[in-house]
Amino acid sequence: MNTQIQLSERPVRGGIKVTPGCGAVVSFDGIVRGEEDGVPIAGLHYEAYQPMAERVIARILEELGRVHPFGLVCILHRIGFVPIGESAMRVDIHSKHRREAFALLSAFMDRFKQEVPIWKKVVH
Amino acid sequence: MNTQIQLSERPVRGGIKVTPGCGAVVSFDGIVRGEEDGVPIAGLHYEAYQPMAERVIARILEELGRVHPFGLVCILHRIGFVPIGESAMRVDIHSKHRREAFALLSAFMDRFKQEVPIWKKVVH
Repeated sequence: MNTQIQLSERPVRGGIKVTPGCGAVVSFDGIVRGEEDGVPIAGLHYEAYQPMAERVIARILEELGRVHPFGLVCILHRIGFVPIGESAMRVDIHSKHRREAFALLSAFMDRFKQEVPIWKKVVH
Repeated sequence: MNTQIQLSERPVRGGIKVTPGCGAVVSFDGIVRGEEDGVPIAGLHYEAYQPMAERVIARILEELGRVHPFGLVCILHRIGFVPIGESAMRVDIHSKHRREAFALLSAFMDRFKQEVPIWKKVVH
């Protein structure tokens, strides 16, 4: 477990364009690891029923947003082959407070995995 | 509440350098908002008792890492004046699984706010 800690007067890297009024920006990348159920893999191939996947994601966000309000959510999911070490999915959330953002991210990912018609196939 | 959803064959933006074996990368930016307790502000000025702050952060991560294992944690905190819309603090966490990363981020931020000797002053 490696840690890096730095207090500095220089701007924090990033250059984020923040939604006005939002004090928390949280990002999640789901990275393809080198194994699936303990077996080494070359990567994952993702397929989606695309129009329905986008509708389901929008509905999940609408429902969760009533409980965990947000300023902006961006979802990117890669389709096709994704090699080890690359991001298959990215979620960006801008919220007024960090607790709303954390709760939304966690709840969204659980529902995403259950409900969104995107399938992965292991590639050896 | 604005949402953007995209399924695409193109690589997800970012170009993250992921710690080997980690399937989750979570980042948090704490952004200076335009108000403090409902009153408009120009920004926040941060002061730290720097050596102690770094020691306390390291200790919190060591303790939390026993419960929520991680591959890498990077903490950056800005000192001095931070204007509205800029990041005062960034946390990056690389973990094997997303749930460990989310739990660690949430627990770390709660302890950080309570225990780390960094103080903010409102600048009008």
